[in-house]
Amino acid sequence: MEIMRVVRDLVTTQRHALLAAKSLRVVEDYQGNLSVALDAVGCKPGDFVITIGISAARLAAGDPRITTDMTIGGIIDEWSEQEWRS
Amino acid sequence: MEIMRVVRDLVTTQRHALLAAKSLRVVEDYQGNLSVALDAVGCKPGDFVITIGISAARLAAGDPRITTDMTIGGIIDEWSEQEWRS
Amino acid sequence: MEIMRVVRDLVTTQRHALLAAKSLRVVEDYQGNLSVALDAVGCKPGDFVITIGISAARLAAGDPRITTDMTIGGIIDEWSEQEWRS
Amino acid sequence: MEIMRVVRDLVTTQRHALLAAKSLRVVEDYQGNLSVALDAVGCKPGDFVITIGISAARLAAGDPRITTDMTIGGIIDEWSEQEWRS
Amino acid sequence: MEIMRVVRDLVTTQRHALLAAKSLRVVEDYQGNLSVALDAVGCKPGDFVITIGISAARLAAGDPRITTDMTIGGIIDEWSEQEWRS
Repeated sequence: MEIMRVVRDLVTTQRHALLAAKSLRVVEDYQGNLSVALDAVGCKPGDFVITIGISAARLAAGDPRITTDMTIGGIIDEWSEQEWRS
Repeated sequence: MEIMRVVRDLVTTQRHALLAAKSLRVVEDYQGNLSVALDAVGCKPGDFVITIGISAARLAAGDPRITTDMTIGGIIDEWSEQEWRS
Repeated sequence: MEIMRVVRDLVTTQRHALLAAKSLRVVEDYQGNLSVALDAVGCKPGDFVITIGISAARLAAGDPRITTDMTIGGIIDEWSEQEWRS
Repeated sequence: MEIMRVVRDLVTTQRHALLAAKSLRVVEDYQGNLSVALDAVGCKPGDFVITIGISAARLAAGDPRITTDMTIGGIIDEWSEQEWRS
Repeated sequence: MEIMRVVRDLVTTQRHALLAAKSLRVVEDYQGNLSVALDAVGCKPGDFVITIGISAARLAAGDPRITTDMTIGGIIDEWSEQEWRS
């Protein structure tokens, strides 16, 4: 799993059906690289979160038919930008 | 999932049978690195899209027997080159 | 599998249910890049460990429904920072 | 999927049984990084090909028991070194 | 698959049960980055080998319940450091 920060929501009108009912978030790693993750916990911009990849991402989405390769599986209680970047 | 931009179509005459009925697109990431993705939504060059990888790529293709490791699963409504590269 | 060093525990109060019963550790690679791994062996900060990824991470967690993509599967008996970084 | 160029054949006498009946090719990406891929289409050195990874690689090999993580799934009709490297 | 060189054996006394009966090797890529792979063919330090990743690693280990994400699946007959690094 990776430690990421939520940047913003992502809106896609033309989207694959199985993803349609879930919220997508743009997340960044400590170098500022952006990815898109499905939100399974209810997070908001600025939160530090744990992202789950590989086939576990589909399980973490609550339904293995959901076509995600990255799912936000938890919000980290205590984490600072200092810990993240060093 | 990753945010990519569609570059062009890709034509392959000698191709594995299970991929044959689907359109392939060359896509690039924000650094200009090229990959090939199966198009499940109907996109065109210049579109910013979400690409889905890992085993979810096969599900997003509509048939898990389709031999893809990257599938375009949505077109992003509002995205600019500025957001992408910073 | 990768050779990693355990940095600290990770506390997440809002966490996906299937991960809830297991301990999470922050681990670093030889370049200091941080990841989060599920601990299946009982390790402590400073230990050099083997991390298992991909679908094998779920099996190594003891239950393939556990939504992990990285699991600590062993503690290395003899390993030094010198071997790791050269 | 990735766009790769075939470099040469690879001969391994001590090889895992399930790979034994298939040809292996050394392939390179646009930066010259080498990998090994199973050839499912019949390609030759110099061909630009599409390589399929992840679990789809096993399906593209024609038998999901074949132990490959990268399979050549198509030969690209029109591709030049210029397109590849820019 | 990747071309790697075997560096040494790896001893782990506290190890996940399903890995216990197999030998682990430290391997390096052409840049000297170290990983750990399960040995399914019987190789020795200095051998150039093919490593198999993703879910195929578990199949190549001879039992898909074995929790490996990288398995040595073959020894390369003719390979030199020159080919590897250029």
